[in-house]
Amino acid sequence: MSFFGEKIKLTVFGESHGEAVGAVLCGVPAGCKIDMDKVLVQIARRAPGRDKTATPRLEKDFPEVKSGILNGVTTGAPIACVIENTNTKSKDYNNLLSVPRPGHSDYTAYVKYGGNNDIRGGGHFSGRLTAPIVFAGAILRQILEEKGIKIAAHISSIGSVEDSPFNPVSIDDSLINELSNSSFALIDKSKESEMRAEVESARFDLDSIGGTVECAVVGMPAGVGGPLFEGIEGKLASALFGIPAVKGVEFGNGFNCAKLRGSENNDAFYYEDKKVLTETNNSGGILGGISSGMPIVFKTAFKPTPSIAKPQKSVDLSKGTDTTLEIKGRHDPCIVPRAVAVVEAVAAIAIFDLLS
Amino acid sequence: MSFFGEKIKLTVFGESHGEAVGAVLCGVPAGCKIDMDKVLVQIARRAPGRDKTATPRLEKDFPEVKSGILNGVTTGAPIACVIENTNTKSKDYNNLLSVPRPGHSDYTAYVKYGGNNDIRGGGHFSGRLTAPIVFAGAILRQILEEKGIKIAAHISSIGSVEDSPFNPVSIDDSLINELSNSSFALIDKSKESEMRAEVESARFDLDSIGGTVECAVVGMPAGVGGPLFEGIEGKLASALFGIPAVKGVEFGNGFNCAKLRGSENNDAFYYEDKKVLTETNNSGGILGGISSGMPIVFKTAFKPTPSIAKPQKSVDLSKGTDTTLEIKGRHDPCIVPRAVAVVEAVAAIAIFDLLS
Amino acid sequence: MSFFGEKIKLTVFGESHGEAVGAVLCGVPAGCKIDMDKVLVQIARRAPGRDKTATPRLEKDFPEVKSGILNGVTTGAPIACVIENTNTKSKDYNNLLSVPRPGHSDYTAYVKYGGNNDIRGGGHFSGRLTAPIVFAGAILRQILEEKGIKIAAHISSIGSVEDSPFNPVSIDDSLINELSNSSFALIDKSKESEMRAEVESARFDLDSIGGTVECAVVGMPAGVGGPLFEGIEGKLASALFGIPAVKGVEFGNGFNCAKLRGSENNDAFYYEDKKVLTETNNSGGILGGISSGMPIVFKTAFKPTPSIAKPQKSVDLSKGTDTTLEIKGRHDPCIVPRAVAVVEAVAAIAIFDLLS
Amino acid sequence: MSFFGEKIKLTVFGESHGEAVGAVLCGVPAGCKIDMDKVLVQIARRAPGRDKTATPRLEKDFPEVKSGILNGVTTGAPIACVIENTNTKSKDYNNLLSVPRPGHSDYTAYVKYGGNNDIRGGGHFSGRLTAPIVFAGAILRQILEEKGIKIAAHISSIGSVEDSPFNPVSIDDSLINELSNSSFALIDKSKESEMRAEVESARFDLDSIGGTVECAVVGMPAGVGGPLFEGIEGKLASALFGIPAVKGVEFGNGFNCAKLRGSENNDAFYYEDKKVLTETNNSGGILGGISSGMPIVFKTAFKPTPSIAKPQKSVDLSKGTDTTLEIKGRHDPCIVPRAVAVVEAVAAIAIFDLLS
Repeated sequence: MSFFGEKIKLTVFGESHGEAVGAVLCGVPAGCKIDMDKVLVQIARRAPGRDKTATPRLEKDFPEVKSGILNGVTTGAPIACVIENTNTKSKDYNNLLSVPRPGHSDYTAYVKYGGNNDIRGGGHFSGRLTAPIVFAGAILRQILEEKGIKIAAHISSIGSVEDSPFNPVSIDDSLINELSNSSFALIDKSKESEMRAEVESARFDLDSIGGTVECAVVGMPAGVGGPLFEGIEGKLASALFGIPAVKGVEFGNGFNCAKLRGSENNDAFYYEDKKVLTETNNSGGILGGISSGMPIVFKTAFKPTPSIAKPQKSVDLSKGTDTTLEIKGRHDPCIVPRAVAVVEAVAAIAIFDLLS
Repeated sequence: MSFFGEKIKLTVFGESHGEAVGAVLCGVPAGCKIDMDKVLVQIARRAPGRDKTATPRLEKDFPEVKSGILNGVTTGAPIACVIENTNTKSKDYNNLLSVPRPGHSDYTAYVKYGGNNDIRGGGHFSGRLTAPIVFAGAILRQILEEKGIKIAAHISSIGSVEDSPFNPVSIDDSLINELSNSSFALIDKSKESEMRAEVESARFDLDSIGGTVECAVVGMPAGVGGPLFEGIEGKLASALFGIPAVKGVEFGNGFNCAKLRGSENNDAFYYEDKKVLTETNNSGGILGGISSGMPIVFKTAFKPTPSIAKPQKSVDLSKGTDTTLEIKGRHDPCIVPRAVAVVEAVAAIAIFDLLS
Repeated sequence: MSFFGEKIKLTVFGESHGEAVGAVLCGVPAGCKIDMDKVLVQIARRAPGRDKTATPRLEKDFPEVKSGILNGVTTGAPIACVIENTNTKSKDYNNLLSVPRPGHSDYTAYVKYGGNNDIRGGGHFSGRLTAPIVFAGAILRQILEEKGIKIAAHISSIGSVEDSPFNPVSIDDSLINELSNSSFALIDKSKESEMRAEVESARFDLDSIGGTVECAVVGMPAGVGGPLFEGIEGKLASALFGIPAVKGVEFGNGFNCAKLRGSENNDAFYYEDKKVLTETNNSGGILGGISSGMPIVFKTAFKPTPSIAKPQKSVDLSKGTDTTLEIKGRHDPCIVPRAVAVVEAVAAIAIFDLLS
Repeated sequence: MSFFGEKIKLTVFGESHGEAVGAVLCGVPAGCKIDMDKVLVQIARRAPGRDKTATPRLEKDFPEVKSGILNGVTTGAPIACVIENTNTKSKDYNNLLSVPRPGHSDYTAYVKYGGNNDIRGGGHFSGRLTAPIVFAGAILRQILEEKGIKIAAHISSIGSVEDSPFNPVSIDDSLINELSNSSFALIDKSKESEMRAEVESARFDLDSIGGTVECAVVGMPAGVGGPLFEGIEGKLASALFGIPAVKGVEFGNGFNCAKLRGSENNDAFYYEDKKVLTETNNSGGILGGISSGMPIVFKTAFKPTPSIAKPQKSVDLSKGTDTTLEIKGRHDPCIVPRAVAVVEAVAAIAIFDLLS
């Protein structure tokens, strides 16, 4: 199912080169004000080829709201949006049907759907499907913000170039606001040129490069989530792994905690203004699957875009032979900058579901 | 919900110092033969204080099957099991109610349940709840094995000591069989003494130590899973993060792929005996959320046990003041060896659900 | 949630006087041929003001398929359809916001959504939402027919005029085909004029009239469904009560069985051509929640349309006073003839979910 | 799945002649006081052979609570209960495996489970499985009562003998209390002897008799439920049809509304003490799938017990021939009096889920 949620239900539809992509979001309460310009800002952050500009009015990738919002207020009915596919040149994807791209879903989708899936542009597996996800997240994060919950992410690394991490015990509102509106979101902006060089170098080599995105949810009340399969980590991870190209998710100090002793990893409690806080936040704001009231912090790993122009070994499924594949067309050498908005959107959706 | 699954439904119940823990497993087909001795082997692998022996007949932690299995064959009705809590000395956990253990669920559970949760031994948050999970996994993995799907995990690291990894393109059946019956599962057995020394050193210091578990699913047919929120990664991760103490999950080369270029990370396809294989398996056997037919390989990070004997800073919730906590009683300085059986069980449950 | 299904997931969206209504259907297998003309026939059967004609090409209520079907074959991706709302005169529904129509959802929706719901034309509660449901059913019934499962319903009664019932032990294929394409579906066609007179009489009196629809599912294999909450009756009923105006559902001889003795009600088994059949079919083809292989037969009761032109007592919510309401505009005096296609569609959806 | 609920999750397990039956109930909030004596009263109402007495302490059918309740208060963890099967004489059910009882699940379960199901006493299809359902309902109705929501049902009819119906616009608290504690629940008690005679007459004839149960939910706030598949009717019906032997469910005037005109069926609104009420309650307290604040009233039809001592025609599945079956053993000639407590329990579960 292209489908997420228990209390809210998000259904995502569409194929990259079909008529449209879109989303239906059920379970949003009535009476919430939605600022469509803020939605467009998020859509623009994810849109291709735009990372230097941030015009809110983006004519392509325009989400037509078909129901659920009337005069800027939610009606309680499902919120449906359709984003027409306009920029779909009729390239010949036919050879991809028989020669699957390494690292891509071509082969596995071929097996699962018996060759009936829409292969053009990756079909329903395309990164384009994250556009309606960003739409849904952009709706829900506005409602979360009314409750004092804000979400921001940044490019934590591209290849070997790393941004500074969040300070997990204290994240400024101004940083949250800045990152969550940025098209190349960095905490240490001095790293931008180095990161862009890393991407350009990959592009020059007809190659691509991976990276990581770190995300923080600030203002989360303590006591949300639950034990075992009800935990925040499981809920967030099941959503985050729904983003194409994500191969790892960790909370707090994550894989690093496996090298530590309890006395190093435990976060000491203390009181401040009658509120219970922790001196460190190695847990990423989650203990026993339940929020502690500290910022929820997690990181996701994105693999390098599999579609590269370099010749690659593959197979020809129609002939049953080994072959070499050269992929034509323009492909993102690094999706990480655009993925920041997607991670935030997915976090908003999962957090909203937890709170409903 | 202490609850997992879409096609199968696993419900886990119980509290550490209550009457019993247990599980109900719905959706298991009728007519499957279940070898109860094999179930007991798995229960024993997870049981406390047993890592040097592996007697299958373990009188404590004995799972009483209340329904769903008749004469060693599944009936199609829900499989219910109850594991009585026998070894529950009536310790005084009362002070934990007001002084939460750092790194533990005490504080967050207190907030969520308003102090009504059973705090004794961690209550429903206790690692003891993994016993019924191992029971459920031990049932389902037998049915998976009938379909040629086998699951094994090993201690990938404890602190700074690392085991050798799986060779992700080729995993021997004999290795799978050995690991999945072992109580201290290692690929490179020469690391055992070093790892035990790491644990003993932590224990000596009244401390604990974390680690990682790597798991492989072999024999998975290609074409299982799906795009977006239907993917194998999301399904497995949502289950794995349900294990207490797990803070990170990665598939294939995971976080490492974020540093690579596409040409390094993509797994080249080739034919062998008319079957499509990949030369490497950086994807961990999953492309576009769907199995490729290669082994599914993933790693989980376990934080160090939060219950340590060293004095720690905490708060007294009843007084609203900072305080120091000294935890009494015997606690595992490292849960990773026992967690291996739990990771395998959870993988079996998630994979079974995907295949149903 | 405007949402149905476990294995398949149907989400219905839209508001009567909003931009569009539509549906997203997840979980339909890839590779199924879909004849869009057959879909249009079903859409036409449900469409307003058309019961004497049956032109398949209906320009209004045209379902635009946005994804999931390529060249007439399902791709495995979610099937999304949008039906634009064209015929929505900008009537003044404002007074309905404060004066709720008796028997309608106006008052209860007002309470639930705090007055934010789209009241125009009933909004998301409108019978218009059954158009996308018919679309979804029209897709799924084609796939069911490939498996030999056919569904047909008829107007069982309007007011006091009754059609002949199905012979529940033997239903001709030709009858099934005829009914499932008819716009005024009757087994005993001689009753049509009497029924139409009943409707006209109600219309003449500025009133409306209720009725019942009986439905049969033929070709259902034995062994589908399950005990307790997994039963066919529960699954079908939860779907059927999703149709606006349905107030009762019964299977087989239904409420009548409550008056019988076991010896009268039990259906005797016998062999015919090595197949187990029953001499009668009082059970409606369902024993213990599981299909017996006999036709599944059930009946649904539709209340009379609540929107009548006669003056009615109501309240003015804005003033907190009793008042009298006169509803303007043209309203169906009887929805039962059009509801036949909706019952069939809903049955197709629920049966498909059971079989998946 | 022997499984119900969205916000709460009820799993029922066990087989009639296995070790035990039981239930696990997830999603019950922490901090709710549970009076176990009240639970036992409900268990006793459903227990076999007890309709003249109502001793709360019933030693057989004693529900052992294994988790989720500590010192009479819910902990927030799943509530698990086990009811051991003590009174299971080792009858020979072997011939039932090959000769299915007409009207019973024997044949359909045989097909579904390939003969692996536990046939003894009906296995997982037995009415005995309603004991844990009554347990779950008895927990939840206590929490509902704290919110002012009360539930009661009565024997609406047995065979041709009818009790007086509820007055659907006004149901006394004292009537609710009396019925919901009664073991032969009637509004017009003068009908008891006639009803008992109807049952005795059936028993004398080695036969059984069906009946109906009418149920009311009083104190339900307006605004609960939702449109389409989110409606109260669908939710309640899917639960009610989970009770073995239920073949029909109707809300308000149900099937009778199909014979009426809108002007007769619509419930006029009026104000009383600033509250919106309806003069009649033909809708059964539900409009557009949402509660109106009036009592929710519905009726369920129970078929006559299929296990009758009279010789019946059946088939011998092992021989492939027609045969005659004579069922030995003592069977209830009418389950309707005991079913009253089950209907109330199921209503409590569904209503609780709707309100969560």
